[in-house]
Amino acid sequence: MRAAILSVGTELLFGQIINTNSVYLSRELQMMGFDVLYHYTVGDNAGRLKEILRAAFKDCELVVATGGLGPTQDDLTKEAVSDVQEDHLRLHEPSLEAMEKIFSRMNRPMPENNKKQAWLPSRAVIFENSEGTAPGFALENGGKTIICLPGPPREMKSVFENKARPFLQSKSGGVIAHKILRAFGVGESVFETELLDLIGGQTDPTLATYAGEGECSLRIASKRESEALAGAAVADMERRVMARAGRYIYSDNGDDLPTVVGKKLISGKISVSSAESCTGGLFAEKLTGVPGISAVFGMGFVTYSNRAKAEALSVSEEILEKYGAVSEETARAMARGVREATGSRLCVSVTGVAGPGGGTPEKPVGLVYIGCLLDGKETCLELRSRDVNRAWNRNYAVLAMFDHINKRLAR
Amino acid sequence: MRAAILSVGTELLFGQIINTNSVYLSRELQMMGFDVLYHYTVGDNAGRLKEILRAAFKDCELVVATGGLGPTQDDLTKEAVSDVQEDHLRLHEPSLEAMEKIFSRMNRPMPENNKKQAWLPSRAVIFENSEGTAPGFALENGGKTIICLPGPPREMKSVFENKARPFLQSKSGGVIAHKILRAFGVGESVFETELLDLIGGQTDPTLATYAGEGECSLRIASKRESEALAGAAVADMERRVMARAGRYIYSDNGDDLPTVVGKKLISGKISVSSAESCTGGLFAEKLTGVPGISAVFGMGFVTYSNRAKAEALSVSEEILEKYGAVSEETARAMARGVREATGSRLCVSVTGVAGPGGGTPEKPVGLVYIGCLLDGKETCLELRSRDVNRAWNRNYAVLAMFDHINKRLAR
Repeated sequence: MRAAILSVGTELLFGQIINTNSVYLSRELQMMGFDVLYHYTVGDNAGRLKEILRAAFKDCELVVATGGLGPTQDDLTKEAVSDVQEDHLRLHEPSLEAMEKIFSRMNRPMPENNKKQAWLPSRAVIFENSEGTAPGFALENGGKTIICLPGPPREMKSVFENKARPFLQSKSGGVIAHKILRAFGVGESVFETELLDLIGGQTDPTLATYAGEGECSLRIASKRESEALAGAAVADMERRVMARAGRYIYSDNGDDLPTVVGKKLISGKISVSSAESCTGGLFAEKLTGVPGISAVFGMGFVTYSNRAKAEALSVSEEILEKYGAVSEETARAMARGVREATGSRLCVSVTGVAGPGGGTPEKPVGLVYIGCLLDGKETCLELRSRDVNRAWNRNYAVLAMFDHINKRLAR
Repeated sequence: MRAAILSVGTELLFGQIINTNSVYLSRELQMMGFDVLYHYTVGDNAGRLKEILRAAFKDCELVVATGGLGPTQDDLTKEAVSDVQEDHLRLHEPSLEAMEKIFSRMNRPMPENNKKQAWLPSRAVIFENSEGTAPGFALENGGKTIICLPGPPREMKSVFENKARPFLQSKSGGVIAHKILRAFGVGESVFETELLDLIGGQTDPTLATYAGEGECSLRIASKRESEALAGAAVADMERRVMARAGRYIYSDNGDDLPTVVGKKLISGKISVSSAESCTGGLFAEKLTGVPGISAVFGMGFVTYSNRAKAEALSVSEEILEKYGAVSEETARAMARGVREATGSRLCVSVTGVAGPGGGTPEKPVGLVYIGCLLDGKETCLELRSRDVNRAWNRNYAVLAMFDHINKRLAR
């Protein structure tokens, strides 16, 4: 089935906000087996809205629209959609009651113009919005379906997941199961190449790779008659993927690397401290983003200068002079210094050339050393990325720290 | 003049990448006085591309397209554009030579299919691409103009700024000057309200506010017959804005808060160290992102636990017990502890409840204390945000630290 995504809102045309809704909906619709042919963005203008809807229906059977369901005069999506689908608006009492409840819970009178949001197409299937006042809906006419969702991303996602997706699934007579595997230490193209026959060889389950910042992920999705069948098909494919590329995969539940590592440290009651040079505190920032980490996180040192490395971590002048601040020896000495200062069971360090400047032929931008001391056992990892972008190199070094720790904790 | 933006690329329809090009082009075109009516995204499909172009030209005189100029078979933008504009492709020798130079500089043979990128519409104005192999171009026909730009954002921006913008300016018979003022400590709606008569009262210079993460910015743009006239109109409006809302504005050259502060510290040779609790290292990470900061950055401490605050910063148990870790007294003691440990001239600290959990009626999520010790003079700032989002609160607290330092350095 062919689909188009329509975003309504003048603020998008002004470039004031990034259109993340269409990214989300593209992925979700693709996962459900829809072929997304167009994205359209149009302002709050009834004539242009209708023109776009008619153009979209020339090629597509489904249009998913977001935005323009608000209470003000320039929110015109419903009127335009009703017109194109040969319907009319009428007051939908349950939606009005839901709205009145929201305002009474906030102890505020409901503004008169909010009532507009309860006027909905008479033949529509209404999608209750648990996150806001604007309900969504689906409206069909002659084999063409329009789904309208609220514009704010949180509301849009909630209504899509809880209402629109089940609606589309019931239409298509199947249940979808899916799983996301996250991988580090492999580029998207290599990852895809290793799985190419699995990706290309079948229509269900479908596999799709996504490139993230320094990592990538794989979505496995299956659509079958029952949840049990779809789940079994996904699980079977997951086993085949793991046998092929399991060495890259660190998470099968959507957790990112800091969360995977943080949870292991918390459940294992392993105290942790860090010393960072080139990453400037980003490792500590990511780790302290994990809920509950305060139970095990000891200290984070940001030792950017040689003097700080010497004073706070007792890295000797001989090491700094002989091998330089960016060296395996310094990384190891930093980790030992953290251990001395904090007594933590896990002590991790990082030093490198983040760029864009500061590189030499011998120590180029992207060269990073990671020191790791776990219960007295010391390891060191050398990274060489070819990126000169400072933010990218920092992020990649921090992911590599978490990946290294994750592997050490697995042993 | 009415305009549409057309993004070409199947990866956009798959939701694999976010469409940042259309955000950039929307802002730029709006600044130049164009009225952007539509965004379209379409895959690498010649038929649909032509249909979209024809639909866009019903309402618009200008279409700016990005993507589909690559060397592979599925890059079809040029063919479709030529067709719609009643032209044909021919080999553009200067572009071929430029491409050959790029490959010879890299010491690599040029793949045969790259030559495709030098085939361009015969009547087009060619836009050289200094960042890549695909040139852009403008092609006019009967009062309708299409501008084609490469898809990768860096190449797109470079070709737009250096070639497409001057081309459009020469067509419109004017020169544009603009300035970006960045503001902290004021919400976009309040900021806009204070400037409402300036924003609404005239057509040139134009003013537009943009909401950022915890901050906002204002763009002033003017289009006049000469650069001098446009620059004078912008400068005059800037004076009026500063008189009205100058207390919020920290930068008039696009620099963000960490950069503004970092530059002042470097030029003033002011050594700086930090201690962070709720922000987990984000302050140090932002500050060490400023080029050249290593000359003045001493140490960053991430003291997440009470024990770390006591051991590394000598915060007394009495203070931690009597006032709690999130208190003015603790923030001040942390800053003094940093001073003792490092001897830096500027010592800054932060402690707070970042959320989403951990709040109490007395100390709610969003309560943050910032301690600042500059050349012996101590100050403390209390923040109360109403946001329960951890990442947002962390970012806002760090911006507030930089803002507080910036104001102290100004004195």
